[in-house]
Amino acid sequence: MKLFFGEIFDNSAILNEEESHHFAKVLRGKEGDFVHVTDGKGKIAEIEVNSISKKAVEGKIINLKTEFEKKNYYLHVAIAPTKTMERLEFFLEKATEIGIDEITFLQTYHSERKNIKIERIEKIVQSATKQSLKAYLPKINDLIKFNDFIKSDFNDFTKCIAHCEADIKRTPLKNILEDKPKKILILIGPEGDFSRDEIKISEENGFSGISLGQQRFRTETAALQAVFAVDWILG
Amino acid sequence: MKLFFGEIFDNSAILNEEESHHFAKVLRGKEGDFVHVTDGKGKIAEIEVNSISKKAVEGKIINLKTEFEKKNYYLHVAIAPTKTMERLEFFLEKATEIGIDEITFLQTYHSERKNIKIERIEKIVQSATKQSLKAYLPKINDLIKFNDFIKSDFNDFTKCIAHCEADIKRTPLKNILEDKPKKILILIGPEGDFSRDEIKISEENGFSGISLGQQRFRTETAALQAVFAVDWILG
Repeated sequence: MKLFFGEIFDNSAILNEEESHHFAKVLRGKEGDFVHVTDGKGKIAEIEVNSISKKAVEGKIINLKTEFEKKNYYLHVAIAPTKTMERLEFFLEKATEIGIDEITFLQTYHSERKNIKIERIEKIVQSATKQSLKAYLPKINDLIKFNDFIKSDFNDFTKCIAHCEADIKRTPLKNILEDKPKKILILIGPEGDFSRDEIKISEENGFSGISLGQQRFRTETAALQAVFAVDWILG
Repeated sequence: MKLFFGEIFDNSAILNEEESHHFAKVLRGKEGDFVHVTDGKGKIAEIEVNSISKKAVEGKIINLKTEFEKKNYYLHVAIAPTKTMERLEFFLEKATEIGIDEITFLQTYHSERKNIKIERIEKIVQSATKQSLKAYLPKINDLIKFNDFIKSDFNDFTKCIAHCEADIKRTPLKNILEDKPKKILILIGPEGDFSRDEIKISEENGFSGISLGQQRFRTETAALQAVFAVDWILG
C-alpha cells in the first residue's frame, strides 16, 4: 500500500503538488492506478487515478476511512534537540510510528543545540507518517524558549517534566498514566538535564516532576521511552 | 567520564590494543591521566595511567566496582535483520543503552537480508556500551537458521515468539513479564512476520506466542518496544 498526502473531498481526492510530482515522475504512475491518500487529519481514501497533470494527480474515491486508527489520547512531547541531529531524527521517525500528536522543540539552559531545521524535521515526520500508514500527521512546533513555553496555556493537559534531580519530588510516569489522562504533555530535557531553576518554574506553572525509570538515558532514548510507555499503558 | 575496554587485574588494568592506540594516538592521552576501564563482564576500574607503549596502556587501579549496575534479569533477543542496516544498528545502540545481554540474528523464511557484517555489529555494540557507561558487553551471535536456533537448548529461559497472526493464541508480553522471569528469550520476526510453520515449530519447541500491543510495528521498533517493556517491568 502506497500512501500520499492530499486533499480529500466528497467523491474525489487530489494529491498535493509535491506528491503529484512524485507519483507521476518518480513512480511513473498511470491513470487507472489505485493509490491511498490521507489528509493527515484522520481520513484515508483509496482512489482510482483518473487525471494526471504536472501539479495535480486526481482520482475518484473507491473507499474512505475516517478517524483511521484514532488513538484515545493526545500526546505532546516537548524536547530539547540533541547535539546530533541524526539521533533526534530517529526519535521523530519512531515516535511517529508509535503514535505522537504534537512535538515542540525547547531551548533550555543546558541546550547544546540552539537551532533546528524545521522544514527538514517536517519532511521526516511526513515521511514517517506515510511509511507507517498513519492518517494523523503530528503537529511540529518550532524551537521556543523554555520559559515562554511553560507559561503557555495547556489548560486540560496533564503536564509533566521528566528530570533526574533525585532530591526533588518526582512521580513515576507509570503512576501518572494509571489515571488515564486524555491529554498529556511531557517535557524531555537536554543531555545536561533541565536546570533546577527550570524545574522550579515549571512546577510553579502546574507541571509535575516525573521519573521515567531507574536509569538515566540519553535525551532521545528517554523521549522514546516516554512515547512507548504512553502507548503501552494508554493505547 | 571516558570508558575503555581492557583487562582488569588485582591492582592494575591494561587497555586493549585498539583502545590503547585510541588513548595514545587519537586522544593524545598522557601518563598521569585518569581513565575508566571495563572488562565488559561487570567490572569498572578507575586507573591512573602509568605506562604507555604502542600496544598497551597500563595503569594502577584507584577505584574498582564489580557487578556495576547489574540487572536482575537476563534478556536475549533473537531478531531477523532488517533490510536497511541503519535501522538494525539503531536498535543495537538503543538496546545496549536500555539493557540487553545477548543478541542473535535469525535467518527466517521471510527474511529479506541473508547476511550481516558481524564485526561491524560488534563494533557498534562495543561503542554503545562505552557511550552509555555500561560494564556488561552484550554477547552477539552470528546469523543462524531459524529452525536450528529454536532447537537449541535454552533450558531455564522463558521462551517467547512475537508474531502478528491474530488467529494463533498469543499472550500479551505484559502478562509474561508479570511472572518476573529471570531469563527471557524473545524472537522478533522480519517485516513479513514469521511464517505459520515457523510459529508452529517454535511452539513445538516450547516457545509461547506473544503479542507486543495493539499496533503492528516495524521489526526494529517491535524489538525496541520489547527491550523497553522488559526494562520497564523487570528493571
